[in-house]
Amino acid sequence: QLSLFAKKTGCEDIKFMGVPKTIDNDLVITDHTPGFGSAAKYIACAVKELIRDNKVNDMDIVTVVEIMGRDAGWLTGASALSRGDDCPGPDLIYLPEIAFDLEKVMEDIERCQKERRSVVVCISEGAITADGKYVCELSAGARSTDAFGHKQLTGTARALADIVHERLGCKVRAIEFSSLQRCAAHIASKTDNDEAFAVGEAAVNAAFVGHTGEMSIIKRVSDNPYESEIGICDVSLVANKAKGVPREWINEDGNYVTEEFINYVRPLIVGEMEQFYKDGMPEHIPYVGR
Amino acid sequence: QLSLFAKKTGCEDIKFMGVPKTIDNDLVITDHTPGFGSAAKYIACAVKELIRDNKVNDMDIVTVVEIMGRDAGWLTGASALSRGDDCPGPDLIYLPEIAFDLEKVMEDIERCQKERRSVVVCISEGAITADGKYVCELSAGARSTDAFGHKQLTGTARALADIVHERLGCKVRAIEFSSLQRCAAHIASKTDNDEAFAVGEAAVNAAFVGHTGEMSIIKRVSDNPYESEIGICDVSLVANKAKGVPREWINEDGNYVTEEFINYVRPLIVGEMEQFYKDGMPEHIPYVGR
Repeated sequence: QLSLFAKKTGCEDIKFMGVPKTIDNDLVITDHTPGFGSAAKYIACAVKELIRDNKVNDMDIVTVVEIMGRDAGWLTGASALSRGDDCPGPDLIYLPEIAFDLEKVMEDIERCQKERRSVVVCISEGAITADGKYVCELSAGARSTDAFGHKQLTGTARALADIVHERLGCKVRAIEFSSLQRCAAHIASKTDNDEAFAVGEAAVNAAFVGHTGEMSIIKRVSDNPYESEIGICDVSLVANKAKGVPREWINEDGNYVTEEFINYVRPLIVGEMEQFYKDGMPEHIPYVGR
Repeated sequence: QLSLFAKKTGCEDIKFMGVPKTIDNDLVITDHTPGFGSAAKYIACAVKELIRDNKVNDMDIVTVVEIMGRDAGWLTGASALSRGDDCPGPDLIYLPEIAFDLEKVMEDIERCQKERRSVVVCISEGAITADGKYVCELSAGARSTDAFGHKQLTGTARALADIVHERLGCKVRAIEFSSLQRCAAHIASKTDNDEAFAVGEAAVNAAFVGHTGEMSIIKRVSDNPYESEIGICDVSLVANKAKGVPREWINEDGNYVTEEFINYVRPLIVGEMEQFYKDGMPEHIPYVGR
């Protein structure tokens, strides 16, 4: 809109370039978005530590972890990257792309409980039933709207944990990663960081040579070894569209992601940034203003 | 009790030694406890990142962060270590050692709101009023007991945020660090890790030379440069006692910790562990069993 307006008003010398940026990874055309890899790395790391914490404490407990992504399950699915030789990964993963069926979910959890003492369930804040109810609206105690009448999404983990406790009688814990998943710079992905600089640089360079109304994008050249390159596309191809997790990257039962999903996300979390610590704390750039 | 029982039943060759371990840092005699330094480092780091997140998003918002420590405010106070040249630190800190006065707290928050756009309040899960009510019992919507009739402490941040929203009409966010603060091994303190090994080693060595009914402790030799040594004390001096934050390490207003508090905690968070990453994830020791 800005580039069209510039053309229309004789300001063609002002160039407008888009740069992708969202931890939600829900943009089309670009293979993935800067921010997603680092948030995915944080989520997988935190879920791995929570699984270990339950193991160490040796408790019978159902832990429900709420992860961001109102309309797309990319971040919630990334919890599966915790799985490896040293971690069984979460037991169940529920994304907004699959209609949330409370009865089936309770069966899933009950089955997992019979197999192991600690059951870890990762659920998207945007998980929603076939008839359009968010999970936080399924529990009696949950607040369903905020002061402005918007549906209040926080509370999904608490709501599901309450229902599990009521139905199955077991000890439960609700955990929300909240803002932590979008600001944990101390465990950023180097791949993500490098690509974030690259898309910014490409957009600036394109503007300098006369491009406008376009956006820089990341193209995946190969998975293993991972390689990407930066491209440019018309921004109208990207605006007002959203990219969810493809159905074939979610298992048939709708309660986990597939190996293809994991193979797609894995390279994006690889690599660690050199951290600068001072007196035990990660250093940030100067803080200016109120 | 075990060492006394061994003596009484002619099993004097079995030796019992205590090893301190709690993120809560509420044991007497020992200067501090293994686990505390790493949890404090995580908390200060996460609070610093949340403050930066609010700054970047440039919103008028009150963020209420709930931190562990039912009876002692050591962990909540550690949030102050986020403060430095690059971070203003939290605006208000409420510990269980100071009676929680809702009217005064609302005045504190309102005053901070006039000075800056983002106000960050760190509150202990155990914050309690003079007449024995937990903060989560002050909000109408809060559940006050769990299925076993125990007072339910989770929900302190949510309850306070709800009250702030209702009274001051501003945008609020409630964040619980939950189990994350006790299991974030990827940002452990090296000082803490080294001392944890040292107290364990000292206790084993003491048992081998005939000690029993005692506990290894950490003695602070100097603050700057920080130096500690391991000692031994009779375990009966430690059992069934709890060490809160001294009144003189909390400011007069009861809404922040003092420089002395910060100087005490600072050396305990210093130093980073070498991290081993594989395919983008921190490696853990093998996971055995269900």
